[in-house]
Amino acid sequence: MKLPTQKGVIAAADSIAAILPPTPLLPVEIGGVKAYVKAENLQPIGAFKIRGGWWRLSNLSTDERGAGVVAVSSGNHAQGVAWAARRLGIKATIVMPRDAPEVKLANTKALGAELVLYDRAPKEQGGEDRDAVAAKLIEEQGGTLVHAFGDPWVIEGQGSAGIEAKAQLGTAPSRFVACCGGGGLAAGLALSCPDAAVHVVEPEGWDMVGQALRAGKIVEAGADAPKTICDALQPTATKAINLELLKGRAEVGVAVTDEEVRAAQRWAFANLRMVVEPGGAAALAAALAGKVPVDEGTVIMITGGNADPVAFAGTIGG
Amino acid sequence: MKLPTQKGVIAAADSIAAILPPTPLLPVEIGGVKAYVKAENLQPIGAFKIRGGWWRLSNLSTDERGAGVVAVSSGNHAQGVAWAARRLGIKATIVMPRDAPEVKLANTKALGAELVLYDRAPKEQGGEDRDAVAAKLIEEQGGTLVHAFGDPWVIEGQGSAGIEAKAQLGTAPSRFVACCGGGGLAAGLALSCPDAAVHVVEPEGWDMVGQALRAGKIVEAGADAPKTICDALQPTATKAINLELLKGRAEVGVAVTDEEVRAAQRWAFANLRMVVEPGGAAALAAALAGKVPVDEGTVIMITGGNADPVAFAGTIGG
Repeated sequence: MKLPTQKGVIAAADSIAAILPPTPLLPVEIGGVKAYVKAENLQPIGAFKIRGGWWRLSNLSTDERGAGVVAVSSGNHAQGVAWAARRLGIKATIVMPRDAPEVKLANTKALGAELVLYDRAPKEQGGEDRDAVAAKLIEEQGGTLVHAFGDPWVIEGQGSAGIEAKAQLGTAPSRFVACCGGGGLAAGLALSCPDAAVHVVEPEGWDMVGQALRAGKIVEAGADAPKTICDALQPTATKAINLELLKGRAEVGVAVTDEEVRAAQRWAFANLRMVVEPGGAAALAAALAGKVPVDEGTVIMITGGNADPVAFAGTIGG
Repeated sequence: MKLPTQKGVIAAADSIAAILPPTPLLPVEIGGVKAYVKAENLQPIGAFKIRGGWWRLSNLSTDERGAGVVAVSSGNHAQGVAWAARRLGIKATIVMPRDAPEVKLANTKALGAELVLYDRAPKEQGGEDRDAVAAKLIEEQGGTLVHAFGDPWVIEGQGSAGIEAKAQLGTAPSRFVACCGGGGLAAGLALSCPDAAVHVVEPEGWDMVGQALRAGKIVEAGADAPKTICDALQPTATKAINLELLKGRAEVGVAVTDEEVRAAQRWAFANLRMVVEPGGAAALAAALAGKVPVDEGTVIMITGGNADPVAFAGTIGG
């Protein structure tokens, strides 16, 4: 298997710079300390996932392009892959949970992808295994699996955000604070700036990367994992490649509560005039709650803005 | 009186570029046509008014700086002047309507300005004339009046957004669509790119610039002017300097309804993941409603994002 490298991350950043303007790096002040947020919610698809989708798909061979791609996603990776597929003229089939936010289902469809829905309840409660659904699809119709976080090109693509932030700052960030699902972005950021600290921030009860870093091995989410408003950050486990890249590089992760996430969404509304979805606000939530250190070279990743309007209204107006 | 010039607008743009990163120029698609929005709601104060405030105050003499400034504003110019004043160490007193959005009153205060509140009801209903309130303050305590739109440096400062957009596009925009209160931004944009069309967009019943352009003279808002959700776009009349600069340059303005404005706020939420206040969404509303032409060189100004959270929640979640 290809191993992601810093060189690959830099190549991804070049490729992405040719088609997408850099997302803003906005100065903020948190607890009296100046720092930065990287506004990946302002990407055309509303999330950083456009990076990995683009880099993976543009590295497919002509034959692979002809056979199409299959991805599994709660919604943002879906849009990233669909966006890249449309631009490159590749057929995309996306396996998404039936209870993904309506906005993410609609946007993915609008980008021309074919949707295959599954039930993300635990297996004991009649749920389906999303990776099995994707594997069956590929067996039946062929195509390349584009994993949301365990794919080497996807990791390199996500890491391009770190190269971009470094160019905007004029120097490498001292630390990244990253919202974390399976660990694709965090692994990419770790590669992008080898001397930067990388803090992974996950929802309480869904800190599968934090738990894996502490245990030194992959940990599966239990059937009793709590509900979280961070629909984008609910992987059932990280992957070996992510754990390998993050071991010894990432700070052991922290977990944030739904209330801390909502407070961060309100803060971004009032101070940044931006719409941030729950999963996209986790890193900011950790910074605002004092759960991670913040210094003048800190870049806090705002990773997505595909918020459900009714839920968002409840958070800011409630 | 100093006359604003294109040279002045360019100088303002240089001065502003030294302290503020450019706001994003984001590609959008409206009715199948590609165009751009200029996201001035992402300025540190959440509005383009930081430009005029900075350029006016940084052009004060040492003596004038010592005496302080007085401004009259419904909230965004207030924050622009307060931000510049704090940065330059100048005392700022701001005359604001008592019914300005809480967020704008709070932000202005947080920037260190002194607030003087007045009642913006028509005079017959016990309201006060805001210009008279400011004049009395200056008579009593001295200081320079920084008018929200009728000031030559303020006009040049606002026009810097046009210079910035031109640099980002790599060529002069074919047209600007601008939210319009008194006409400071529109006049500045007209100066910035002499060959660009400038469309002024105002709230229905508060189209004092449009009416003045049609009449060829200043028109005062009547006591029977309707309510509007665009609190930032309710000047009682434009000023001679604005009318002079816009005559023969601006397209005769169009007016948008509250419902069109709310639709634009929802569109920006879903497609741009940005918070736009009602007055900041007027230009986008006109473009989405087909009330102004849109072509590939069109730059639609999103002028502010200081939205009241409860009102915004009602607009997007209702």
